[in-house]
Amino acid sequence: MQFLGYFRSSSSYRCRIAFNLKGVGYQFQSVHLKNGAQKSPEFTELNPQRLLPVLITDEGEALYQSLAILEWLDETHPTPPLLPSDPVARAKVRAFSQIIACEIHPLQNLRVLSYLRGELGLDEGAVNAWLARWLREGLEACEGHLAKEAHEGPFCFGNAPGLADICLVPQVFSAQRFGVDITDLTRVSAINAACQALPEFAAAHPAKQPDFEA
Amino acid sequence: MQFLGYFRSSSSYRCRIAFNLKGVGYQFQSVHLKNGAQKSPEFTELNPQRLLPVLITDEGEALYQSLAILEWLDETHPTPPLLPSDPVARAKVRAFSQIIACEIHPLQNLRVLSYLRGELGLDEGAVNAWLARWLREGLEACEGHLAKEAHEGPFCFGNAPGLADICLVPQVFSAQRFGVDITDLTRVSAINAACQALPEFAAAHPAKQPDFEA
Repeated sequence: MQFLGYFRSSSSYRCRIAFNLKGVGYQFQSVHLKNGAQKSPEFTELNPQRLLPVLITDEGEALYQSLAILEWLDETHPTPPLLPSDPVARAKVRAFSQIIACEIHPLQNLRVLSYLRGELGLDEGAVNAWLARWLREGLEACEGHLAKEAHEGPFCFGNAPGLADICLVPQVFSAQRFGVDITDLTRVSAINAACQALPEFAAAHPAKQPDFEA
Repeated sequence: MQFLGYFRSSSSYRCRIAFNLKGVGYQFQSVHLKNGAQKSPEFTELNPQRLLPVLITDEGEALYQSLAILEWLDETHPTPPLLPSDPVARAKVRAFSQIIACEIHPLQNLRVLSYLRGELGLDEGAVNAWLARWLREGLEACEGHLAKEAHEGPFCFGNAPGLADICLVPQVFSAQRFGVDITDLTRVSAINAACQALPEFAAAHPAKQPDFEA
């Protein structure tokens, strides 16, 4: 299969972790988000939403939206599972992942930051305040839910990494990149450290990708 | 089961449609979003993210994030299904739903509009331009994906409404409420009309809820 992503895109980062955990190989094609390559006619034909990532299956089907790609991957490559089997437990893992994918990430992605700087004319201080507000609010919600669930084990929902960890680690990376201090969120920080110690997470880091630019 | 929502919350609206399609009854508790009732200690204990909706199962489990609630509902009440059975088809329905839940809705919800008006001091013209930008961009992506898939039948993915339609209809309602013209999006508009003609969608409309305020 073919994977179209970008080293710094946090939704691409999620997929890379999952491919590594599943042991699934793929052909990588970099789409230079910062140069607007996702707006090309070729990419638009693949994904009219013009956002990364896109996965092209061996049958030539173009899949988009990282959470949908991750669920497809889990359904077609069940081992190791990214979700538990009990419906309530699945709902909790999905909801935690959606705090990140639906409530934090959309407010900090490139198109929104471009609008803040361009159309709204915000200076970098105001952009940073915007980023800090949603990153902190969202990751505090993650911390609150982790405390409420109180799972044993080093990962979000127990002894093995899954969908929640796959979403959390790239979000913590973004917080660090944007200079948002979250060291007081001790569970989030400990889980991030536990994940980073795994080779599947380490190899998926943006700095390890072929299209990385400092 | 117990459902905590708000008449105008579009993620609550999604759940109401699904409950109606599944024929599942529930006890409704209104959480007055505009008055900040979701920030109360009682609600925060249920959902540390302090966002609506929350579903409390008969076993007392509090579920949050509408897409996670909808997947739980589909797994525990499989008829009629909200998702197709083929993994690629499931991924396409989920991705379409996530265009709305991950890329449109988070940019127009109350906490973000409050930040635009408050912290950023935007006037209503600038707020409306913000809303129009993301609503149009997102719904145009929906239109593009509907054209690409070219399903027969009146709904997003064929002859029966499912997760995609459940997400689309409340988003079209929001566009209308915010005065964003999308009449040129002919497939989106036709699907919305086909859904509104069904009693399960009609009964879920914000104006039909017990906590409705004009």
